[in-house]
Amino acid sequence: MSSGPGEGYVDLGYARVDTDRARRCGFPEVVFGGGKTPSEVAGIARVILARGPVLLVSRATVEQHAAVVADFPEARWHERGRCITVERPALPKNKGRIAVVCAGTSDMPVADEAAITAGIFGGNVTRFTDVGVAGLHRLLAVRDELEASTVIIVVAGMEGALPSAVAGLVSKPVIAVPTSVGYGASFGGVAALLGMLNSCGSGVTVVNIDNGFGAAYAASQIVRLTEL
Amino acid sequence: MSSGPGEGYVDLGYARVDTDRARRCGFPEVVFGGGKTPSEVAGIARVILARGPVLLVSRATVEQHAAVVADFPEARWHERGRCITVERPALPKNKGRIAVVCAGTSDMPVADEAAITAGIFGGNVTRFTDVGVAGLHRLLAVRDELEASTVIIVVAGMEGALPSAVAGLVSKPVIAVPTSVGYGASFGGVAALLGMLNSCGSGVTVVNIDNGFGAAYAASQIVRLTEL
Amino acid sequence: MSSGPGEGYVDLGYARVDTDRARRCGFPEVVFGGGKTPSEVAGIARVILARGPVLLVSRATVEQHAAVVADFPEARWHERGRCITVERPALPKNKGRIAVVCAGTSDMPVADEAAITAGIFGGNVTRFTDVGVAGLHRLLAVRDELEASTVIIVVAGMEGALPSAVAGLVSKPVIAVPTSVGYGASFGGVAALLGMLNSCGSGVTVVNIDNGFGAAYAASQIVRLTEL
Amino acid sequence: MSSGPGEGYVDLGYARVDTDRARRCGFPEVVFGGGKTPSEVAGIARVILARGPVLLVSRATVEQHAAVVADFPEARWHERGRCITVERPALPKNKGRIAVVCAGTSDMPVADEAAITAGIFGGNVTRFTDVGVAGLHRLLAVRDELEASTVIIVVAGMEGALPSAVAGLVSKPVIAVPTSVGYGASFGGVAALLGMLNSCGSGVTVVNIDNGFGAAYAASQIVRLTEL
Amino acid sequence: MSSGPGEGYVDLGYARVDTDRARRCGFPEVVFGGGKTPSEVAGIARVILARGPVLLVSRATVEQHAAVVADFPEARWHERGRCITVERPALPKNKGRIAVVCAGTSDMPVADEAAITAGIFGGNVTRFTDVGVAGLHRLLAVRDELEASTVIIVVAGMEGALPSAVAGLVSKPVIAVPTSVGYGASFGGVAALLGMLNSCGSGVTVVNIDNGFGAAYAASQIVRLTEL
Amino acid sequence: MSSGPGEGYVDLGYARVDTDRARRCGFPEVVFGGGKTPSEVAGIARVILARGPVLLVSRATVEQHAAVVADFPEARWHERGRCITVERPALPKNKGRIAVVCAGTSDMPVADEAAITAGIFGGNVTRFTDVGVAGLHRLLAVRDELEASTVIIVVAGMEGALPSAVAGLVSKPVIAVPTSVGYGASFGGVAALLGMLNSCGSGVTVVNIDNGFGAAYAASQIVRLTEL
Amino acid sequence: MSSGPGEGYVDLGYARVDTDRARRCGFPEVVFGGGKTPSEVAGIARVILARGPVLLVSRATVEQHAAVVADFPEARWHERGRCITVERPALPKNKGRIAVVCAGTSDMPVADEAAITAGIFGGNVTRFTDVGVAGLHRLLAVRDELEASTVIIVVAGMEGALPSAVAGLVSKPVIAVPTSVGYGASFGGVAALLGMLNSCGSGVTVVNIDNGFGAAYAASQIVRLTEL
Amino acid sequence: MSSGPGEGYVDLGYARVDTDRARRCGFPEVVFGGGKTPSEVAGIARVILARGPVLLVSRATVEQHAAVVADFPEARWHERGRCITVERPALPKNKGRIAVVCAGTSDMPVADEAAITAGIFGGNVTRFTDVGVAGLHRLLAVRDELEASTVIIVVAGMEGALPSAVAGLVSKPVIAVPTSVGYGASFGGVAALLGMLNSCGSGVTVVNIDNGFGAAYAASQIVRLTEL
Repeated sequence: MSSGPGEGYVDLGYARVDTDRARRCGFPEVVFGGGKTPSEVAGIARVILARGPVLLVSRATVEQHAAVVADFPEARWHERGRCITVERPALPKNKGRIAVVCAGTSDMPVADEAAITAGIFGGNVTRFTDVGVAGLHRLLAVRDELEASTVIIVVAGMEGALPSAVAGLVSKPVIAVPTSVGYGASFGGVAALLGMLNSCGSGVTVVNIDNGFGAAYAASQIVRLTEL
Repeated sequence: MSSGPGEGYVDLGYARVDTDRARRCGFPEVVFGGGKTPSEVAGIARVILARGPVLLVSRATVEQHAAVVADFPEARWHERGRCITVERPALPKNKGRIAVVCAGTSDMPVADEAAITAGIFGGNVTRFTDVGVAGLHRLLAVRDELEASTVIIVVAGMEGALPSAVAGLVSKPVIAVPTSVGYGASFGGVAALLGMLNSCGSGVTVVNIDNGFGAAYAASQIVRLTEL
Repeated sequence: MSSGPGEGYVDLGYARVDTDRARRCGFPEVVFGGGKTPSEVAGIARVILARGPVLLVSRATVEQHAAVVADFPEARWHERGRCITVERPALPKNKGRIAVVCAGTSDMPVADEAAITAGIFGGNVTRFTDVGVAGLHRLLAVRDELEASTVIIVVAGMEGALPSAVAGLVSKPVIAVPTSVGYGASFGGVAALLGMLNSCGSGVTVVNIDNGFGAAYAASQIVRLTEL
Repeated sequence: MSSGPGEGYVDLGYARVDTDRARRCGFPEVVFGGGKTPSEVAGIARVILARGPVLLVSRATVEQHAAVVADFPEARWHERGRCITVERPALPKNKGRIAVVCAGTSDMPVADEAAITAGIFGGNVTRFTDVGVAGLHRLLAVRDELEASTVIIVVAGMEGALPSAVAGLVSKPVIAVPTSVGYGASFGGVAALLGMLNSCGSGVTVVNIDNGFGAAYAASQIVRLTEL
Repeated sequence: MSSGPGEGYVDLGYARVDTDRARRCGFPEVVFGGGKTPSEVAGIARVILARGPVLLVSRATVEQHAAVVADFPEARWHERGRCITVERPALPKNKGRIAVVCAGTSDMPVADEAAITAGIFGGNVTRFTDVGVAGLHRLLAVRDELEASTVIIVVAGMEGALPSAVAGLVSKPVIAVPTSVGYGASFGGVAALLGMLNSCGSGVTVVNIDNGFGAAYAASQIVRLTEL
Repeated sequence: MSSGPGEGYVDLGYARVDTDRARRCGFPEVVFGGGKTPSEVAGIARVILARGPVLLVSRATVEQHAAVVADFPEARWHERGRCITVERPALPKNKGRIAVVCAGTSDMPVADEAAITAGIFGGNVTRFTDVGVAGLHRLLAVRDELEASTVIIVVAGMEGALPSAVAGLVSKPVIAVPTSVGYGASFGGVAALLGMLNSCGSGVTVVNIDNGFGAAYAASQIVRLTEL
Repeated sequence: MSSGPGEGYVDLGYARVDTDRARRCGFPEVVFGGGKTPSEVAGIARVILARGPVLLVSRATVEQHAAVVADFPEARWHERGRCITVERPALPKNKGRIAVVCAGTSDMPVADEAAITAGIFGGNVTRFTDVGVAGLHRLLAVRDELEASTVIIVVAGMEGALPSAVAGLVSKPVIAVPTSVGYGASFGGVAALLGMLNSCGSGVTVVNIDNGFGAAYAASQIVRLTEL
Repeated sequence: MSSGPGEGYVDLGYARVDTDRARRCGFPEVVFGGGKTPSEVAGIARVILARGPVLLVSRATVEQHAAVVADFPEARWHERGRCITVERPALPKNKGRIAVVCAGTSDMPVADEAAITAGIFGGNVTRFTDVGVAGLHRLLAVRDELEASTVIIVVAGMEGALPSAVAGLVSKPVIAVPTSVGYGASFGGVAALLGMLNSCGSGVTVVNIDNGFGAAYAASQIVRLTEL
C-alpha cells in the first residue's frame, strides 16, 4: 500500500482509493461492489474507514459482507438492497426530507438501494410504495406528503410513467430511477428509461436503470444545499 | 383491367383491388396512399366507388386528391389528417361512441386520422384534446365522459403515459396510438410505443406509431359488435 | 395493514392493493407475480379475496402457489401458463366467444395465459393450436369458426405473420400477442412484435411480447360490451 | 374558449392551457413550440400572459415569434436557442447561481436554451463554453468558479464525458444534457446520453438529448429550494 | 487507365473495374451507381462494354444515364427501378422462369430493380403484383403459376409476411426482398427484414432491404444451374 | 388424434402436423424441437413416420431423442448439431453437390446442422472447415472444389466476411449463415448477419442467425431443380 | 479575446482554443467545422495560425472556407474531403509511409479526409482505391506495396470486410474506417463498424464511422514514433 | 493431419492452423478458445508449438489448460485474464514500452488479457490501475509515466471516458478497450464502446468490447515498428 504522488489517494495495486473525495465532493468515496473480490472490497473498506466514519458498498454480495464484517463487526448487510453499510457513528441527520416513491412492489430492491444510500449520507427518508399510475387515487392520496418533501426520488419499471404524474403535481425536484422490472418490450428497463427521459413533466431528471444509488446521491447533494 | 380467377379482386396491373373485402371483413378496402402515384390512387378509387358508397385514402397527398376529385367532385381533402374521403352517401351512424383522446396539441394530425377513419365507418366520435398526464386535473375532469364512450382511442407522443392513466380510470377498451411527436430519445415515437406496450394499465392494446387509421379501424369493429 | 385516506386501497406496506378497481374498471385487480415473494403474493391474495370472488396471479411461481393454497385450498396452479387462480364461485359465463389462436406448439404457454385470464373473467374460450401461415390450409379450415367468435386473440412468435392472415379473413377484432419463441434475429420476440405492429391486416391491435394476460383482458372488455 | 369544469385550465379546443401550474408546480406552464401553428402558439401565449408576467416558448420558430410579437411587442426572439420569451416584468433574480457548462462550440444552441430557461425563472446564470475533456487544463482553470455555483448544468455531445469529470471535481449537483452534436456512431446524441447515464461521477442526473429546457427547469427548482 | 499487374482488372484511378468477373462468377460486373459521379459511371461503362455485350447500373440517377447515353445511345433509363441498361445484343434468354412477386403497389420500385436485373442476365420474368396476405385469395389464385416457376422472388414491406405464405404453398426456392415501405415501427424496412429472416416457411433466404438486384442475381445463378 | 376437415393435417391437440407438406413443398415437415416436450416431439414423429420414410428434428434435446428412440430405435442423436434423424430408408442421393464451408472451428455446430439437414434430404455434402478470411490462402486453396459444387453454404460468425470473399471467387449460389459466435459487439450474431446482408459479393442470400437448417433446406431445393 | 488563467488556451467566448495542444500532444489543435459559423471558424483559424504554421478544418463548408480565405489567401478548399487546409510552410515530410486503402469508389470522400489529414501532419501518403474483397485479385496485386507501408488505413462501407483481409496479409498496423456507404441494413455505416470491430484479423483497430480524420491522426502518431 | 495444398496451413479436420502467419503477419497464430473443446485446443497447440516457441490461447477455460498442460507442462494458466501461455523460451523483450491503463478495479480481467498478450509478443508492460476520470488527480499523477510509453492501452467500462482524457494529455497513440463492466444502460459495454468511438480526444482507436487481446496485438505491431 502506497500513497500516490502529491497525496489524495491510496494505491492498493488493484484500486486507487480516492481519499480526497470527501473534501472535493462532500461525500466519501462509495465502493461499487460489482466485479470485485471479497478481499478487494475488504481492503478498500479498511482504507475508507481509517479516514472517515461511514462506508457504503453498493451492488454487494453476501460474501463481500462476510469479508468486511471480519474487520468491522458493525457492518450491516441489506439483503434486498444489496448493500453493505458501516456507520461509526452515523453522519448527522439532515432537516430536509427525501421521499422515495416506488411504482410497484417489484421495484422495491432499487428503492431500498436509494433509501440506504440517502440514509448513510444523513438523509431523512420517507417511503411511498406501490403508487403506480394505474390507480391514480393512490398517488393523489399522498400528494401533500410529497409536496412537503425537499426532493422526490421516483422509482418505476414497465412504462415508467410515474415521474411524469408526480412532477405535474408538485413543485419539488423529481429524480427518476427506471428499473429493469418488466418483460418483453421493456428490454430490461429501457422502456422505463425512455419514458422518463421523454417525460412531459417539466424538470424530471433521470439516472441509469436500477441506479437507486445515483438518485440518492444527487438527492443528498440537493438536500445539503438547503442546509448551508 | 381484369378480374382475378374465381373473382374477388380486380387486377389493375399495379394493384389487385380486393373487392371482396367488405363481405369478408365488414368494411371496404382502404387505400394506403404512401408510394402510389396520383393516377394509381384515382384508378383504385374508381374500382372501389363502383362497388360501394365510401372511399378512404390514408397517408394521401394533395396531388392524389386532385386526381381523385376529377372523377369524384365530392372528394374531400383533410389537410391535417392527410386523408381523402368520399361518402355518397355516408354509412349509417352507429349508436356507440368512440372517444379520441389526445395528449398534446402536437398529436392532433394523428388524432385527426383516427377521427376521420372512425367517421367514414359510421363512427360517432367525440374529441378530447391536450389532456396529458402533466396536468392530471384536465384528465380527471373528463373521466365520466370517457367512461360513457364505447371504446377509447388514446393518442400520445413523448413518453406515451396517457393510456395507462386512462385505462386505470375507466372500464372501456383503450386502444393506444403512439405518435412520433418528441425529440432526442423519443426516437421518432419508439419511446411512446414502448411506454404503451409496457403499460401498467390492464387491457391497453397498441397500434403502430402514428397509425390513427388502425386504431380507428379496430375501434369501429368493436363498436359494430355492440350494434349486432 | 391500513386503509388509505379516503378509502379505495389497502396499504400492506409492500403493496397498496387497489380495492376500487372492480368498481372503476369492471374487473378486480390482477396480481403480477414477477418479483414478489410468496408471502407478499399471499398477503395480497387475502385482501383481494376478502372483497371479491376471484383471484388471478400471473407470472406466478409454484412457491407463490404454495403460499396462496395454504389460505385458499381451492387455488389452482396452471403449470404451463404460470398462473394461480381462485374462483369461489366463478364469475358468470359470457355469451360472447373468445377465440385463442396459436401459431405453433411452442407458443402454447402464452396462449394458456390468455385462455386462463379470459376464463377467470367469464370468457367462453375456444382454442385453435398450430395453425401458422406455413400451412395455410390449416388456417382456412377453421376460418368459419373464427368468424363465429366475438373477438380473436392470435398468439405467434418467429415472424408473427398469423394476425395479418387472420385479420384478412374475418370481420372480428384481432388482438395480436407476439411471443418470445424463436432464435437469432427474433430477438426475444421483437421480430414478431414488429411484424404485428406493421400488419397489413387492418385493425390488428397488439400487446407486449408474451402478454397473454393483456390480450385476454382487452378481449374480456370487448365481450362485456356486447353483453350490456 | 371555455374554462374546464372545476377550473384549473382554459380549453382552447386545440389546447387545454394549464393555468393552475404555477400554483401546483411553482412555475407557469411553458409552451413546447414543436408541431404547433403560429396562431396556436399566439393563442396559448395570450392565455398565459393574461394570468402571469412571463412566457417561454421552447423549440419555437421565427414564424411563431412573429405571431406572438403582434400581441406582445416585448416578445424576444432567441435565434440560436430557438426560444420566445416575454418578461413584463422579469421574475425577481435568485441569489443562487446556475453554471451552464458547454463542452464545445457546437453545443451552444442547447446551452443557450438552458440559459434562457434558467433566466426566465429568475436564474443567475454563468456560462463556461468549450471546456471539453480533450484539454483538461481548460476545465481545471474554472474549477473554483464551478464549485462556487449552486447547481451545474453540463452540456456535451460526442462521447458526453464532461459531466463525469466535472462531478469528480465539485460537490454541487450536476445535471447533464447530452446533445445531438457528433456524427456516425454518435447516433444523434445516443452516445452522449449513454455516457452520461453510465457516468462514474456520482450524482450526475440526466435529461433528454438536446433538452436544455428540462435541465434548467430542474436547476431552477433546486435553486429555489435554497431561497426558501 | 492502366491494367493491374497480372491482369484481371482495369485501374481508372477512382475504380478498379473487375474485368475478370464474368469468367470467375459467370456474370459481368454490375455498377453500383450510389455515390459515383456521372463521369465515373460513364468511364466504368466504357471499360465494361469494351469487353462484353451488356451493362447494368443499379441505384442510378438520370444524370448518370445522360453521361452513359452520350457514348452508348442504346442505353435505357428505367425510371421506377432506377437502373441504366445496355444490351448489344441481349444475352440469350433462359428457359427457366423467374417469378417476381410483389406484396403491394408501393413495393414496385424494388420489384422493378429485380425484374430488370433478372432480364439483363437472360431471365424469363413473370410479374405478380399486389398479392399481399391481407387478401389471401389473391395469392391462392396464382399458386399454380408460382409453382410453375423455377425460382420465386418475393418483394414485401411492412411486416414482410408474404414469403412465409408463398414458401408454404410451393416447392421452389423463395428469395425474399424486404422493402423500406411502411412507417413508424417498420424502421425503414427492418420489420420486414426481421419477419423474413424469422420466416416459418422453410427455405426462405433473404437479401438486404430494397436489394432487388441481389435477389435477381441469386435467382439468375439458380436458373443457370438448371440450364447446364 | 383427428384429421382436419378436408384432410391435409393431423390434429394432435398440441400440434397440427402438416401431412400435405411433401406433396406441396417437396420435402416432409421438419420438427422444430425448441419449446416442445419430449412426448410432444415423439407424438409428432409418429405421425410423420407413419406417412414417410424420414424424420428430422432440429434444435432438439437429448431428452427428446430418448422419447423418439423408444418408438424408433434407429433414431440417431447428433450431439453437436442438436438434431434427431430417422432414415428408413434414406432418401436417394442427389447428383448435385452441396459445399458446407465454415469460417472457424467454433462455427461447427451450425455447419453440422446444415450438413445433417442437407443429408436427410438426399444431399451430397462436402465439408470445408476453418477457412476464414484472416488467412486467405486457406480459402484460395479450395477455390476449385467450391466452384465444382452446385450450391455453397457459408457459415461464419464474428464479422461474417467469408461469404463476400467466396461469392467473388465462384459462379455458384452462395447461401450465408451468420452464427452467434463472437463476443462484445458481435451481439449474438448480429454483426455477422449485417455483414452478410450488406455483402459486396453479388448474389449472396442470407438466413437467420445459426439457422443451418434453413440454409440447407434452400440448398436442397436448388439441387433438386438441377435433378429434374 | 483573453487568455485563460495560467495560460494554455485563448478564450474567444464561443471557443477556448487549446494553444498548448502541440506541446502536449505533438500536433496543433484541429478545428471540427460541424455546427460552427464561418466567422467562428475564421476566428479560431486566426488564433491557431498566429501560433503555428498549419491549419486543418475538418467537416468544413465552402462558406467556412470563404471566411478563412479572406484572412489567409493560401487556404485550400478540398471539395470531396470537405476540408480546409493552410500550410505556411508545410510541416517536414516523414520518411514512413501511410497507405490509404479504399474498398470502393463511393468511399473516396472519407479516404480523402484521411489522406488530407495525414498530409498536413507530414505524412507520405499512397492511395489504393477500389480493392474490395469481391475481387480479391485486386487486393492481392497490391499486397507487397501495402506491406512496404508503415501503417495502413483501410476505408470501407457496406459489410466492412476489407480490413480483415488486409490484416491477414501484412504485418503492419491496420486502422479501419467504416463509412456510411450502403443502404438498408447498412444502417448508415453500423454494419461496417460492427464488421470491423469483430474482425477476425488480429490487431485491427477502428475509428468512428466516416472518421477519416481520426484514423489519419492515429496513423500520424504511429509514423512519428518511428522517426524518433 | 494433412498439410494444405501449396502448404501454409495444417488441416486438423476441425481447424486449418495457419502455419504461415508468423511469416506473413509477424506474430504466430493465436488460438481463440471460445467454443473449442479441450482436445481441439490441445491439438492446435501441438501444431503451433511444433513450429514456434510461443503459444497464446485467449478466452480459454481451465479444462483447456488441463488438456494443454498434459503435453506442455510449462503451460501457464492465467485465471483472471482467462489465458493459456507457453514460452519456450520467451520472445526477446522490446525496448519500447506498452502502458496498460485501467479505469477501475472491475476492468482488470480485460487489462490482464491485454498485458498477457503484449507480454507474450515481447512487450515491456507497465500497469496503471483504477485511474478513472471521477478522480482526475489520480490520472494527472501518472501523466509523465504515460507520456514516456511508446503506446498506451486504455481499458474502461461504464461511460468509457478515460481514453479521451488520456489522449488529451499525451502525444502517444491511445488504443481504447471498452469493457462490459457496468449495468443498466451500459448494455454490456455498448455505452463505453460508443463513448470511445466518439472520443473528442484525437487519434483514439478502438477495439471490440472486452478485446484486450486485440488492443495488445495492435500495440505490439506498433512497438515493433520502432524496433526496426
